[in-house]
This record gives sequence, structure tokens and C-alpha cells, in this order.
Amino acid sequence: MTAVEKIFAAHAGKAGTAAGEIVTARIDRILLHDITGALAIDLLAAMGADRVVEPDRVVLVGDHYSPPPDPTAAGLLSLMERFAAEKGIRHLFTTGEGIEHTLLPEQGLLRPGDLVIGTDSHTCTAGAFGAVGTGMGSSDIAAAMALGELWFKVPETIRVTMTGARRRYVTGKDLILQVLGAITADGATYKCLEFQGDTIEGLNLDERMALCNMAVEAGAKTAFVPPDDKTRHWAREKHGDGGMAQAVWSDPDATFQTSLDFDAGAVEPLCARPYAPDNVAPVAATAGVRLNQVYIGNCANGTLTDLRQAAEILAGRRVAKGVRCIVVPATRQIYRDAMREGVLEILAAAGAIIGPSTCGACAGLHMGVLAEDQVAVATTNRNYRGRMGAHSSQVYLANAYVAAASAVAGELIHPAEVTGA
Amino acid sequence: MTAVEKIFAAHAGKAGTAAGEIVTARIDRILLHDITGALAIDLLAAMGADRVVEPDRVVLVGDHYSPPPDPTAAGLLSLMERFAAEKGIRHLFTTGEGIEHTLLPEQGLLRPGDLVIGTDSHTCTAGAFGAVGTGMGSSDIAAAMALGELWFKVPETIRVTMTGARRRYVTGKDLILQVLGAITADGATYKCLEFQGDTIEGLNLDERMALCNMAVEAGAKTAFVPPDDKTRHWAREKHGDGGMAQAVWSDPDATFQTSLDFDAGAVEPLCARPYAPDNVAPVAATAGVRLNQVYIGNCANGTLTDLRQAAEILAGRRVAKGVRCIVVPATRQIYRDAMREGVLEILAAAGAIIGPSTCGACAGLHMGVLAEDQVAVATTNRNYRGRMGAHSSQVYLANAYVAAASAVAGELIHPAEVTGA
Repeated sequence: MTAVEKIFAAHAGKAGTAAGEIVTARIDRILLHDITGALAIDLLAAMGADRVVEPDRVVLVGDHYSPPPDPTAAGLLSLMERFAAEKGIRHLFTTGEGIEHTLLPEQGLLRPGDLVIGTDSHTCTAGAFGAVGTGMGSSDIAAAMALGELWFKVPETIRVTMTGARRRYVTGKDLILQVLGAITADGATYKCLEFQGDTIEGLNLDERMALCNMAVEAGAKTAFVPPDDKTRHWAREKHGDGGMAQAVWSDPDATFQTSLDFDAGAVEPLCARPYAPDNVAPVAATAGVRLNQVYIGNCANGTLTDLRQAAEILAGRRVAKGVRCIVVPATRQIYRDAMREGVLEILAAAGAIIGPSTCGACAGLHMGVLAEDQVAVATTNRNYRGRMGAHSSQVYLANAYVAAASAVAGELIHPAEVTGA
Repeated sequence: MTAVEKIFAAHAGKAGTAAGEIVTARIDRILLHDITGALAIDLLAAMGADRVVEPDRVVLVGDHYSPPPDPTAAGLLSLMERFAAEKGIRHLFTTGEGIEHTLLPEQGLLRPGDLVIGTDSHTCTAGAFGAVGTGMGSSDIAAAMALGELWFKVPETIRVTMTGARRRYVTGKDLILQVLGAITADGATYKCLEFQGDTIEGLNLDERMALCNMAVEAGAKTAFVPPDDKTRHWAREKHGDGGMAQAVWSDPDATFQTSLDFDAGAVEPLCARPYAPDNVAPVAATAGVRLNQVYIGNCANGTLTDLRQAAEILAGRRVAKGVRCIVVPATRQIYRDAMREGVLEILAAAGAIIGPSTCGACAGLHMGVLAEDQVAVATTNRNYRGRMGAHSSQVYLANAYVAAASAVAGELIHPAEVTGA
């Protein structure tokens, strides 16, 4: 069996299962945010369901509209707070704690082997920790809150093997962009992308989050990185000795839908050009695009690792005049860690705006939205038309090194052009 | 002559002037922000004026919509940037530098004795530095950019003398609230409020800003604190030996419209209740109001002094569950200073959201807006109906000690009730 087949089997109470099988599986965590999660809350009431079957499995995060930019947004946070009080839900984060996908592992609400569903498409980020995470429509989420279980078609797995030492300034972001460029936006529809190989083993958990986060941009149902010592270390820290109890790995004879091999050593810093995450090109080949905004943050790349990368570039340098450089740590804990390390001081001294933890600008909601014709480099995961603002605005997706270097140059640029290294 | 009469005389090129006289005065600084300033930019073009007569006197600050919450807001910042480039205006702050009234003295763009006009009503904050600042409509601001001068009616001065040692937790905010409660919202219409007395001398420049900032809430044309050693120290730091060259003081025989005396030693922490800044009551008498949000920031009270006050209360304490506590340093420099001192770490550890420098929530624009029926304590300067969000929301204005203590208690409270001190 593949790892994902094992996770579904375990949650369906079966000895085994196979890709394509329909199973009813118990859910470990149900993740709701303040837009589509609020809709799920309304739908639960509309269904006439009077209780949440297992309140401790539900996690409510007000991240898209935190802090609220208008009364309606404030009302959505308020709705989550009332819902938590009514249903006895303890895991409520509506006062700036952070972005759900980063918060879940940080707060110890995720274990290897878990099955997590969420109202947000980037719930697949949980794969970084050897869990299955997947986004769903709000009515399914409502049903899951009422039942504690849902039906799933067990996905096939595409094995993505990446080998070789990464070049300087190449991160998890570039690896997933490489995959996206190769397989395109529908290259993994309803599949699991399982990442293997020494390059993947070399990624820290933050970078694995970046990798898994964008699996959905290839249509993947979920993503998976086999647990290893890094996972074990994190799991012990969060959950003690039992942290790895559910951990699973694909069997040597597991059936993969297909296997893709990448020479990660040949990957250079990449970007996704407007208007699709799979419209991938080397940064060096795309350089020179003039910028109005640089955004470093979001559930893909707002980790401490990303902030450190940005600080490495921005130390002793200045954001170019006229460029709005916004840095948003994904959680309050990351904010505090980055402050303690001196990372935030480096960023602020360079002229960056340090924002509160929110999804805000990534989705064009607030905290850094683009006007017509404006251009941004962002470490976010989507660059569809109008995603970050006006219809004619353009977003280039890239890693935090590239974003920070581009902030200094005032144009999209390879970090080596700025650092000389 | 009063100090304000002297400043108008100097700027009108006259030996003397008197309250009530109409003079044409040269302007030292013209301050534009991204809402009404953008309107002034449009009006200048509509007037057919092809240039700004003295570009170095113009200061453009994108603070209300920084970072922009929507494409229109981003477009307003963009408009300011284009205008600066076209007209050769050097003093451009649209990428998170801070809130105009705090930025002006911080950036050394203000001197004692200056005459400053702005598109924002709180331009009177400049009085803290012995300057005359006043807000105006956008068409007058446009004319001032075209001409470098404008007509004024020299205001009468109300002398406000405050004496006595302040009680614990009483700040500049409480002193101006005391005045507002006494003279009400139209108590100083078109007057200058000149603050004197040993209590005023005891205020640092940050607290004097809080004091002068809200003079306009009594209808005042401007506010004035006589320059002293604190002013001198600041002026030397920003401008060197010539910093005090224009400083003026009211003559002993100056004619005041009226004189008001306050026993500042009797003032206790105050709040302005919904829905008016002059609806003032002691915090202790108003305590117990349940809160959804606490906001520490804005041009009145987002200084390092305010952040330190908040940290003094929040050190080792936690923001109450369900309360959104937002702290917004007024400028990036204040942000950095507060970070260096460990103040931001104290605030974040307590559960506060640290926001980027912006006017945002104060004016209900973004970054902490209230839903229907929500209640906030804020260190801001206005609490009109709907000011910070929905029509039925309510804002209590108070100092940073009170705001922080209320965040801990989850309800409006006297700081001593939280600290026991």
C-alpha cells in the first residue's frame, strides 16, 4: 500500500484499502476559516444539525480577515467565536494567532498519519508532516462536523523523486514550482503527490510545507512527505513519545499511478508568471520586471525559514524607493521567534512593512492589495488574474530570497545579482 | 501678542498682528494624506495649476490606506507617487513609514514657530512642538500648493493652565479629555488652545502630541505648547543649533480670549464614551463595559510612550480570551525602537496583534474594524457613530494604560484594578 492508502485504511477501520476504493473515514481534524468556514457554520445550522459530534476535532481559525478590514469581516470572526462557545469548541484562533495551515502543526493539532480536512484548498500543507490533508466544499465540512466522518475515494499516488544537492537560493518553493511547470495545473488531479529522494530529505519542515502547500495547484487531492527524523523530532516536541504512533510509509511494493524523477541539483530559482502557478520560468530568464510591491508571507512561505531567507538578503540593504515590501509572519509565534532572532529588525531597518499574521494580501482581501497595472513578486501560492487586487495587476510567485532581492532591486531579479554570491 | 499671533505675523511678513485680523501667510509645510490629499492633488489639476510652487514644502504621506486594503486604496498611494515624481516632491512616504502627524516631527520636517497646514484635521498635533498646525479642506490645500501662501484669520487664544502632579496612570490623553469634557465639542471653535502650567511642562513631547492632537475635538483651529527645554532638546537633535531660531512664546501681556485653570492633580483616568469625544467620564465610573477589541495606536496615542505604557500593564499578563488587542506603532521608527526595547515582545507575548503603521482602524478603514454591536476601547481621537466600523458599534476613547488593562480584563477598567498599584 501507499502511505495514503494506509492512512485511509486506518481511518476507515480496515486492514487495507486501494486507490479508487470508496471508504467512509473518521476525521482527525476539521479546519475552518473565516470565509468558507463561516459558510460551513451556516450550512450546519441549515441542515438542522444541532451539535458538532466531536468538538475537539474542530479547529476554527480567523485568518483571512484578521484583523478585520470591514464590519462584515469582523462579523465573520464574531460568528466563529459564537459557534465555538455554543458547540464547546476549544480550538479557536480569531485574535491574530496566525494562518491555519501553519498554526495547525505549530499548535500541536496535527500528527503524522492524521486525516485532516479543511474548508481551505491548501489544507494539503499537512502532508509536510506525514499526514493527509485535503480541502473540501463547505457543505461537506458541515456534514463532517455533524458526523465525524465522511466518504472519500482513496487517491492514487504520483511518486515524485527529487535527487541532488540544491543550488544556492533554491528552496522548497522552487522544487514545487519545478513540478508544477512540468506536470501543469491539472497534472495531478485527485492524486496524492508523494515526495521522495535525498533532496526532499534535505528540506526542513518549513520547506516541506512550501512543497506540499502548492500540490493543489496541480490539482492534487493531497500531498505527502514520508516522516523521517525531522518529523520525529517535531512530533516528539509537540506530542511526546506517542507523536509518531500513527506514522506510515509507502511499502516498497506499493502501486504508484506514476513515478516522476527530477534532478533537483539542476533546478534554479524559479517564478510562476501571471496568471497561473504553472506558468513557470527561471527567475534569471524573467528578470527586469518593474515592481510596485513585494510580499513575503502566506501559508506557503511565511515561516521562520522564509523570514530568515529574506533577512539574509535584506541585511544591510534597503528596499528600493517606491516599492512596498510587506512581510507577514504566518503565525504570532513565528513573529515572536523572528523578533527574538533579530530578523524583524533587519527587515524593518531595510524598509519593510511588518504585518500581522493574516492571509490578507495573498487573496486580495486587505493588507497589501494591488491597483490596476501594478506588479508584485510574492511568496504566495496563486497568481490568477485579480487574485491580489485589480484585474490588470500581475503577481510573480517566487521564494523569499528572490522576493527580498527583488525588493532591493525594484525589479524581479535572481538573488545572486543582488548579493554577488 | 500671543504665540500664535507672533507665528502668523512672522509668516505674513509683518511686525505684529492681532486675533481677528485677516492675513496672507507663507506656509512652511503642506501635509497631504492619501484620502483628502489625493483629492487636493486632483483639485490642483482641475484648477489648471501646472506646478507646485515650492515642492520641498509639501509632504505626502500614505497612511490611511497603508498597506492598501483594496485596489482603489492602492491607486491613491500610486497617485501620490506619480504626483511626487511629476512635481519634484522629495518628502514622499507611501511605503509604511508611518502616520503623518507623528512622522512630521520624527523626520525633522517641523520646527518650533512653523506654520503647517494639512488635509487632515489633526494637523493641530504640531502644536506640541511650538508650531501652528491646522487642517483645511482639500481645495485650500491645492491653492496653497500653487501659491505657497494662503489667507488666515488669526485665531484668538484660550489659555489653558494645568497645575499639579499627575496621579498614576494619568497621561496627556486624560488631560485633553478633561478639557474636552469641560468645554465640550464647540468650546474652542476657531480658537487656539494654548497649554501652560507645571503639569504641561511635565509632559514629554509624545504626551504633548496627545494633548494637542485632540484640540480639534473642541473645534480648535490649532493648539500650542510653549517651547521649553524638552522642545529645545528635540529641535537640536533634528535641526542642530538653528532648531529653535523661530521659537516664540506668548508675551506676559498677551490678550487671551479667556483663561481656564485646571487642577491636573485631581484628574483621574478618563474615557470618552460613545458617541462623542467630549462625552467624558472617569474610567472608574464607566468600568465593566464588555469588550470585543482594544486598539492602541493612531496619531494621538501611537507613540513610544504609549507603547511603553501598554507594555507596563501587559508584561506578564495575557489579553483576555476573545478580545482582539491591536497595537499599531505610529511610525516604523517607533516600531523599531519599541522592538529594540523589548516592548513589542512583551505585547506579542501577551497576545496582542502588532500591526503596521497606519491610520486604518481609527477611521474604520481596515486593520481592526468593528462589527454591529461590537465594543472597543481605543487610544484614538474620535468615537462618532460608525467611526471604527458598523453603525451600532461603540468606541470608548482612553489612554494606553487603560486600553491595555481593559484588554487584560476583557472590560473597560481602571489600570489599578488590574495591577493592584
